Amino acid sequence: MPNYRAPVQDMQFVITELAGLERLAALPGYEEVTPDLVEAVLAEAGKFCEGVLTPLNRVGDKEGCHRHDDGSVTTPTGFKDAYKKLTDGGWIGLSAPAEFGGQGLPAVLAQAVNEFLCSANMAFGMYPGLTQGAIAALLAHATPEQKKLYLPKLVSGQWSGTMNLTEPQCGTDLGLVRTRAAPQPDGSYKITGTKIFISAGEHDLAENIVHLVLARIEGAPEGTRGLSLFIVPKFLPAADGGVGARNAVSCGSIEEKMGIHGNATCVMNYDGASGWLIAEPNRGLQAMFVMMNEARLGVGVQGLAMSEVAYQNAAAYAKERLAGRALTGVKFPQKPADPIIVQPDVRRMLMSMRAFNEAGRALVLWVALKSDIAHRSQDAKERQAADDQVGLLTPVIKGVLTDQGFANTVAAQQIFGGHGYIAEHGMEQFVRDARIAMIYEGANGIQALDLVGRKLPRDGGRALQAFFAEVSGFIKDHGADAELAPYVKPLAQALGELQQATMWFMQNALGNLENAGAGSTDYMHLFGLVALGYMWCLIAEAAKAKAANGGNGAADSMAAKLATGRFFAERLLPAATTHLARIKAGAASTMALPIEAF
Amino acid sequence: MPNYRAPVQDMQFVITELAGLERLAALPGYEEVTPDLVEAVLAEAGKFCEGVLTPLNRVGDKEGCHRHDDGSVTTPTGFKDAYKKLTDGGWIGLSAPAEFGGQGLPAVLAQAVNEFLCSANMAFGMYPGLTQGAIAALLAHATPEQKKLYLPKLVSGQWSGTMNLTEPQCGTDLGLVRTRAAPQPDGSYKITGTKIFISAGEHDLAENIVHLVLARIEGAPEGTRGLSLFIVPKFLPAADGGVGARNAVSCGSIEEKMGIHGNATCVMNYDGASGWLIAEPNRGLQAMFVMMNEARLGVGVQGLAMSEVAYQNAAAYAKERLAGRALTGVKFPQKPADPIIVQPDVRRMLMSMRAFNEAGRALVLWVALKSDIAHRSQDAKERQAADDQVGLLTPVIKGVLTDQGFANTVAAQQIFGGHGYIAEHGMEQFVRDARIAMIYEGANGIQALDLVGRKLPRDGGRALQAFFAEVSGFIKDHGADAELAPYVKPLAQALGELQQATMWFMQNALGNLENAGAGSTDYMHLFGLVALGYMWCLIAEAAKAKAANGGNGAADSMAAKLATGRFFAERLLPAATTHLARIKAGAASTMALPIEAF
Repeated sequence: MPNYRAPVQDMQFVITELAGLERLAALPGYEEVTPDLVEAVLAEAGKFCEGVLTPLNRVGDKEGCHRHDDGSVTTPTGFKDAYKKLTDGGWIGLSAPAEFGGQGLPAVLAQAVNEFLCSANMAFGMYPGLTQGAIAALLAHATPEQKKLYLPKLVSGQWSGTMNLTEPQCGTDLGLVRTRAAPQPDGSYKITGTKIFISAGEHDLAENIVHLVLARIEGAPEGTRGLSLFIVPKFLPAADGGVGARNAVSCGSIEEKMGIHGNATCVMNYDGASGWLIAEPNRGLQAMFVMMNEARLGVGVQGLAMSEVAYQNAAAYAKERLAGRALTGVKFPQKPADPIIVQPDVRRMLMSMRAFNEAGRALVLWVALKSDIAHRSQDAKERQAADDQVGLLTPVIKGVLTDQGFANTVAAQQIFGGHGYIAEHGMEQFVRDARIAMIYEGANGIQALDLVGRKLPRDGGRALQAFFAEVSGFIKDHGADAELAPYVKPLAQALGELQQATMWFMQNALGNLENAGAGSTDYMHLFGLVALGYMWCLIAEAAKAKAANGGNGAADSMAAKLATGRFFAERLLPAATTHLARIKAGAASTMALPIEAF
Repeated sequence: MPNYRAPVQDMQFVITELAGLERLAALPGYEEVTPDLVEAVLAEAGKFCEGVLTPLNRVGDKEGCHRHDDGSVTTPTGFKDAYKKLTDGGWIGLSAPAEFGGQGLPAVLAQAVNEFLCSANMAFGMYPGLTQGAIAALLAHATPEQKKLYLPKLVSGQWSGTMNLTEPQCGTDLGLVRTRAAPQPDGSYKITGTKIFISAGEHDLAENIVHLVLARIEGAPEGTRGLSLFIVPKFLPAADGGVGARNAVSCGSIEEKMGIHGNATCVMNYDGASGWLIAEPNRGLQAMFVMMNEARLGVGVQGLAMSEVAYQNAAAYAKERLAGRALTGVKFPQKPADPIIVQPDVRRMLMSMRAFNEAGRALVLWVALKSDIAHRSQDAKERQAADDQVGLLTPVIKGVLTDQGFANTVAAQQIFGGHGYIAEHGMEQFVRDARIAMIYEGANGIQALDLVGRKLPRDGGRALQAFFAEVSGFIKDHGADAELAPYVKPLAQALGELQQATMWFMQNALGNLENAGAGSTDYMHLFGLVALGYMWCLIAEAAKAKAANGGNGAADSMAAKLATGRFFAERLLPAATTHLARIKAGAASTMALPIEAF
C-alpha cells in the first residue's frame, strides 16, 4: 500500500519565503496569520491526511460507491467516519468567512491543505472540494437570505455541495443545456431535466446535499444567454434550520469509471424539483464561472497532489529495489545488487517529478496569494492587478499541472516496473485517479483556448503584459548574479520564446483564428514552463539566502533545491523551443484533411 | 462499445509500396507471396479480428480471468470459442515453418496480422503472441527431438507457450534468479521456484501449456552466467503425442492489475517440476534473448495497435459529438452545434495519432522485412546487414511505439471528454491496456540502455553507420526534389541532431557512463523521430508516385498521406531539438542529489 507524508516543511518554505507571509499578514483580516499559525495548521492538516485519509485511499478504490434501489448511495468503508473528523476539525471552512462559521484564513493556506487532502485521498477530497466551490458561488451571488440559510451548513460540512452543468448531449458547450425551470407563484422554480457526471451527487456523508444547477427558465433565450443558476437542495430546509421534505431530485445511477471510485459520480434526475434562483435570471453561466474558476485552481492542485504522492512512493521504491549495478561501478558491495536509484534513467524520472512538484507548489501558492490580495487589499489597483494574474494563470495551472501531474504518475508507476501495474502497490490507482483532472472542470484543450482566446486579449493584454514585465524585471535585476545565472539565463530564453509565440499569434491569428486554436495547447505548456521556470528563480533566490543564513539542515535542503532547479532549467525548460516551433507551424497541416478523410 | 476496422488498405499500401513486396517475393521460400495472397491474408485476418475479437474486448476487461481452488483458470466468456477459431484458421503458425505445420509466410505478414489482433483485443492477442515467442525460441535452440515433440502442437495452437523469467526479487536483473534445477539420472531436471507476472501462465484455451523457464542448475555460477533455459510442460507429453501426467507446476494466484484483464497474469509455482534443458547449460539467457527480441517487436506493435484503435474511435466520436462552432464560422448550420472535429485542438490530437500510426506501421514492416531478409537471403553480407538493422531498431520500436502509443490512447480518451473516463465507451480500457506495453519485455528505460549501451557500439558502430548512411543517402538523393522538400528538409535537421547526440555520447560518455544513461531515453526518442521521419519520406515518395498513377480514389488517399506526413514534419519532428538539448545537458544535475535527499 502506498505511503504519504505531507510535505509540511516544503509548504512552509514556500509560504514563508516565496508566497510572502509578511505580505499576507499585512492584508486586513489576516493579521493573525503568523509563522506559528501556518506551522500549526499545516502540521495538523498533515497529521489528519496521513493518519486518516491515506489509509482509506485503496479502500475507496476497491470498494467504490454503491447505489441502492431507493436511490441512496453508500460511500466506502471509513469515509463517513473520516468525513466526521474532517468537519469536526473545521477543515471545510478553513478560508470561509467567520460570519458564516468559517476560520477566515487565507486562500494560500486553503490551497496548501487542499494539496495534502488530494495527495492522501483524491476521491475523498472531492467531497469537501465541491462544497468549497458551492460556498464560493453562494458568497459571490446568493441573496443575504440564501447565504444565511445555506452557508453555515455548507461551511461546517453538515451539508455538502455539488455543481450540475453537464447533460448527456453537452459538457463543454453549455449552450445546449436542456434542463428547464418553471417559475412558481411563490417565487421558486420547478426544475426538470437530467444531469450527468455529477461528482458527489448523492452520498451518505452529509445530512443534506445542496445542488447548484444550470437550467433554462421557460421562455429564456437559446444558448448560454438563457441559462440561470439554481439552488436545488436534496431536502428542503426546514424552519428550524434542519432538513425538511425530500425534494424531487434523485440519483439515477452511478457511473462505472476509470478511477476516483471513492467518489460517487452520479446521473441526477430532476423531476420538478424545487429550486431557487441565484443571481439574476439568464446570468447563470457568469455565476457558475466563479465556482468554476475556484474549481479549476483546485483541479490543478489535484494534478500536483497526485504527482507529489506518486513521486514519494517511487523515490522510496527506487531506494529499496535492487537490480543491476551503477554504471560507474558497484555502489553497495554488501548487497546482491545496487538499488535502482543509482541508475541515471531512474533519477531522470524522479528529478523530473520533483522539479515539477516543487515549482508547481510555488506557483499554486503564488497565485493563491494573488487571490488573497485580490479579495483583501485596500488598494483598488493592486486588487485589480492581482485579479488579472489569477485570471491569466488559472487555465495554465489547471491545464499544465494536470497534464504534467498525470504524466508524472505514469513515470512513477514506470519506476515500479511490473509491480507498478499490479493493484496492490497503488501506483496504478494514482494514474487512474489523476487522469480525470485533465478532463473535468473544462478539458485541458478548453483551458488552452481560454488562455489564448480570452485571457491574452482581455483588457488589451493587460494581464499578460504585467506578467511579462514581472518576469523580465526579475531577469534584468538578476542578470549579473553569477550564482543565479543557471536559473535566470534559461528562463530568459524561454521567456523570449513565449514572447515570440505571443507575437506570432498577434500577427497570424487575427486573420485566421485556426492559427491560434492549432497552437493553443502548445502555448499553454510554453506558458507553464515559463511560469514554473520563474518560480525556480524565486526558489533559487530564497534558497541561496536561506542556505547562507544557516540553521539546522538548511544548507542541505537548500542545496537540494538549487540542484533540482538546475535540473528543471537544463532538462525541462528546453521543451519551450519545441512548443514554439509547433506554434509557428500554424494551422495549415493540422486542418489540411477534409473531415471525410478521418 | 468501441469499434475497430482493420486498416487493410493501409497495410497493403505499406507492404506493396514500402516494405517491398517484390523484394520479399524474391527471397527463397517466399515465391508465392503475391499481392493477391497478401490481400487475401489481410482481408481474412481483418474479418476475424473485427467480427470475433473486437466484440470480446470489453467482455474480457469486465470479466477478467478466474482462478479456481484447484489452481485451474477460466478465461472470459467467448475466449475459448475465439481461440478455437484462431487455431482453426491457422493464424498462430502463420510464419512458422511448413515442416512443423506452419504456413511459412514472411514476418512482414505475421506482424501485419499481429497489429490487427492487438487492436481488436490486446489481452486475447497475448495468448498466441506468447506461443509465437516460444516457437521462435525452440526453433533457434531446441534439439531436433524437442522440436518434433513440441513445435507441431505449438504451431497449431493445440498447446500454448509462456516465458518465465521474473521472480519476486528480480525482473530487470535476471542475475538474481533463484529458481533451481536439479539434474536427474534420466537427463531431465527437477525445477523448483516461484515465477511471477507470467502472462497466459494458466488458462483453459489450450490442451497443454509449455512453459519456458529460466533457472539455475545446482552448482552453476551466480549471476546471469549461471542461468539455463528449460521446457516445463504443464502436462508431460505422452507417447502417443497427446498429454500425459500432470507436472508439478501450478498457478498460485492471478494478479489483480490495471488492465489486460482478459489475460491471466499468474504467479507460477514450480515444485520439483520435470523440465528439459534447451540449448547448453548456463546459456539460458542467450536462448531467452531470441524469444525476447521477437517479443519486443511484438510489444512495440501492441503500442501501435492500441494507438490505431484508439484513434479510430476518437475520430468517429469527433465527427459525431456536437459542441460549439468552428473558430472560422459555423460549418454545419443545420445542426445545433458543429462536430468537434472542426476544432483545431481536436484535429491536432487526431493528426498526431494518425501521423504516428501510419509511420509506425511502416517502420514495423520495414524492420519485419529486414528480419525476413536476415533469415532467408542467400547473400551472407545482406543477411548480416539486415540483422544489424533489426537489432538496432528493436529497442527503438519497443520503446518509442509503446511510449507514444500509450500517449495516443490518452489523447484519444481526451477527445471523448468526460465520456472517455466512463467504462462503457471503452476508451479508458485502451489506456489501461496500453500501459503495460511500456513495462513488460524490458521496461522502456531498459530499451533505451540497450540501444545506447549495446546496440550503438556493437561491431564498431556498424549498424548505426549503415542506418545513417541509408537515411542521409535518401536525403542526398532527394534534396533537389521540391515536392519532397517538406519531408526531407526537416528530416535532414533531425538526422543532424541525432548525429550530434551520437557524437556527444562518444565524446562525453566514455569517460562518464552516466552521461549516456542520463540521456538514453531522450536518445531513444530522438532516434524514433528520425526513423519515423524517414518512413514519412518513403511514404511521401510512394504516395506521390501512386497519386500520379491514378486509380480509384488513389489521389484522395494519397493526398491525405502527404498532408499527414507534413503534419509529422512540422509538428512532431521538432521535438528532436529538445531531446538533443537534454542529452547535451549531461548527467550532472540528474545525479547531483545524494540518495538520502530523495
